[in-house]
Amino acid sequence: MKIVSLARHEKASLSTRVWWWFEALPKRLTAKVIETASNTKKLAQDDPRRVTHSLKVGLALSLVSLFYYYQPLYDYFGDAAMWAIMTVVVVFEFSVGATIGKGLNRALATLLAGALGLGAHHLANLSGHIGEPILLGLFVFIQAATSTFVRFFPKIKARYDYGLLIFILTFSLISVSGFRDAKILDLAHKRLSTVLIGGSSCVIISILVRPVWAGEDLHNLITLNMEKLANFLEHPSVIEYFKKSENGDSNDDKSFLQGYKSVLNSKSNEESLANFARWEPCHGQFHFRHPWKHYLTIGTRTRECAYRIDALSGHLNSDIQAKPEICSKIQEAWTTMSLESGKCLRELACEVRAMTHPSSAKPHISKAKIAAKKLKLLLKSSLWEQDADLLAVIPSVTVASLLIDIVNCTEKIADSVLEFASLANFKSVDPTVSPEKSLVGQGEPDKPLT
Amino acid sequence: MKIVSLARHEKASLSTRVWWWFEALPKRLTAKVIETASNTKKLAQDDPRRVTHSLKVGLALSLVSLFYYYQPLYDYFGDAAMWAIMTVVVVFEFSVGATIGKGLNRALATLLAGALGLGAHHLANLSGHIGEPILLGLFVFIQAATSTFVRFFPKIKARYDYGLLIFILTFSLISVSGFRDAKILDLAHKRLSTVLIGGSSCVIISILVRPVWAGEDLHNLITLNMEKLANFLEHPSVIEYFKKSENGDSNDDKSFLQGYKSVLNSKSNEESLANFARWEPCHGQFHFRHPWKHYLTIGTRTRECAYRIDALSGHLNSDIQAKPEICSKIQEAWTTMSLESGKCLRELACEVRAMTHPSSAKPHISKAKIAAKKLKLLLKSSLWEQDADLLAVIPSVTVASLLIDIVNCTEKIADSVLEFASLANFKSVDPTVSPEKSLVGQGEPDKPLT
Repeated sequence: MKIVSLARHEKASLSTRVWWWFEALPKRLTAKVIETASNTKKLAQDDPRRVTHSLKVGLALSLVSLFYYYQPLYDYFGDAAMWAIMTVVVVFEFSVGATIGKGLNRALATLLAGALGLGAHHLANLSGHIGEPILLGLFVFIQAATSTFVRFFPKIKARYDYGLLIFILTFSLISVSGFRDAKILDLAHKRLSTVLIGGSSCVIISILVRPVWAGEDLHNLITLNMEKLANFLEHPSVIEYFKKSENGDSNDDKSFLQGYKSVLNSKSNEESLANFARWEPCHGQFHFRHPWKHYLTIGTRTRECAYRIDALSGHLNSDIQAKPEICSKIQEAWTTMSLESGKCLRELACEVRAMTHPSSAKPHISKAKIAAKKLKLLLKSSLWEQDADLLAVIPSVTVASLLIDIVNCTEKIADSVLEFASLANFKSVDPTVSPEKSLVGQGEPDKPLT
Repeated sequence: MKIVSLARHEKASLSTRVWWWFEALPKRLTAKVIETASNTKKLAQDDPRRVTHSLKVGLALSLVSLFYYYQPLYDYFGDAAMWAIMTVVVVFEFSVGATIGKGLNRALATLLAGALGLGAHHLANLSGHIGEPILLGLFVFIQAATSTFVRFFPKIKARYDYGLLIFILTFSLISVSGFRDAKILDLAHKRLSTVLIGGSSCVIISILVRPVWAGEDLHNLITLNMEKLANFLEHPSVIEYFKKSENGDSNDDKSFLQGYKSVLNSKSNEESLANFARWEPCHGQFHFRHPWKHYLTIGTRTRECAYRIDALSGHLNSDIQAKPEICSKIQEAWTTMSLESGKCLRELACEVRAMTHPSSAKPHISKAKIAAKKLKLLLKSSLWEQDADLLAVIPSVTVASLLIDIVNCTEKIADSVLEFASLANFKSVDPTVSPEKSLVGQGEPDKPLT
């Protein structure tokens, strides 16, 4: 049957094919619509703040439209009302920090460029009717070229890029349109006030109506990244690999282990959030001058740990599997190192999230380090002499070495969290339990490895 | 003397301190000016295209200012000339692709939103003078909220974010200002034509005057990243580490080895360049429908290799140094693996840069793989039984294992470059030399390890 219909398809005339295409169109369209709808629903469910943000933008725009509808306002501002609408569209960003940053950039740049533009206009005015356009053109050229070049400075680009764009725009508009408009001072004044009104309505709405704080997002991102690494290290199938690689049945739920991958490329996201957060006023748990920059240090160290985990993951997935008899000997040390590093990261994440002084993470690091020492001793012990086939040992030793690396990285993360806690004045909960004490209290978790 | 002056400083009155501050001001200002000047010089020397770009923006802005200066133009367009200036400021980006992308986005969004805005205005007009502002407000709200939400779709955000912004802006401006302006069709028409003129002058200048192609930048970035990894693998001090770690004198020029670090975080840069490149017309070696997306695949694999190199670098820098007597035994295999992987990456980079079919990289991979096999055999051999202290072997085995990983990653990169070459129709230079043949021809590079 299939072959017959295929042959018929090949022989079909163009008109028949077009007819088939149109016949299938409703089906394809329906499928597309259903797909888009489910995508939209997922996007909204993943982060419901997206829906709120969209409504907030609509609200702000409808509000500033009043400049046109409400007669007294229109009588005063006239067409300058346009700038309020424009400001709202361009300035209203997802987070409060980004909105304030853009609003301040726009307001200050408009003010400064407006003043300079007026100055340029005045200067050019002195040079007569023929010299004026030439001088104005020169001013615009020099100003645009200089400001564009300044935008390449990395530090300025990070914080004032938008301000410089508006600076170029306003300076050009004010100085050039001054050539035609006698009431240039009035123009500059109205434009500045509408920009200020538009910008402040954005900032007010973004703060009052379900605010999205970039600082909070950064805080959550950093803790979430630590938790993702913990998820990997504590994941049953990773632990299973260490415990029972003789079975070789740990190849099933590898997809659950990919969570850490997003940590590898989180740098740019973290940096922009930190930049936005610095514009934000104190809110929630975050006081004024919260050490936002320090989140980047923690983020960098978390990423370093993620690189090691990526290397480890490569080994868990590779064809070379460790020899079972070797694995069984060192499995306990492995398991302890992986589990305790994971627990430590999870505790750190919890403590950073709750903004309490990190104390419960230390015992886990100590345990992991003790396990690492044990592993080293074990490798040194005479146990191994009978099995000197190094090729069979390679995968195990590599995994062990990567785990030791991961323990070291975890310690570094803990150090930077500790430093961060003292910088941000985290509240102390129970700092009296020192890691040594807690270890003695709980007893050594591992049986002596013989 | 110092103590005396310090004491004097502490006791000094406020006025004296203010005086000192002002006294030191010129010195500090001079230092600051010198620093800024040297920074500026460095920024310009690092990439002279930045200077050209700044001048191009100045030129474009001065050109569109003619809308104000030249009487016949001003008579026709009037204040709509403002939109040409605004378009140039906002649309002119560093690369041709980004400029075309933004220009097209702006033009199409203005056209579409203008038409829809006119429709909304017409609809609202039908509902009488009281209903009109209410209906217009509703339209603006719905449109702004919907478009803002659509901007969250990742695929749309990557390519049409700016278009949607302009869509919201133009729709609001046209529909709302229509409430006041009877000549709304004239307004929409003039705005569209000035936007088109501004946008096309940006595109023309950015293409004609020393164009900066995003595609070329992406091409160079990818090859440079491969070369950075090659630099690490071929670096004398890395090779020295492998060769003579008994001397322990390889701690001096570690700073030269940091080049690969930038590869770790190049993802976002590569993605935006690939997005821009897709807007560009064919230019130089790049024909229409060049497989830009495939650069991202090569980039991802290069980054995976960089993660392994980062792990390796951690071991080269760590306190645990490999035992000299072990090193000397396996140094040749190590050196070969590192050098040949490096050479392979360098050849691949050269061939991608020249857009010739990759053939000379294969022999290097084969050599590296042979060295890896040798290393494995060596580790298996009886040589090791006399030295079964595994702790001392750990660093060497880990480094060896990471090197094997790096060889595998290099092979993956070579595979993706090969696939890319066939997709992009690279010209064949001399594909007759197969890796096996060439190996036989050159003889085995390593002496047999005994």
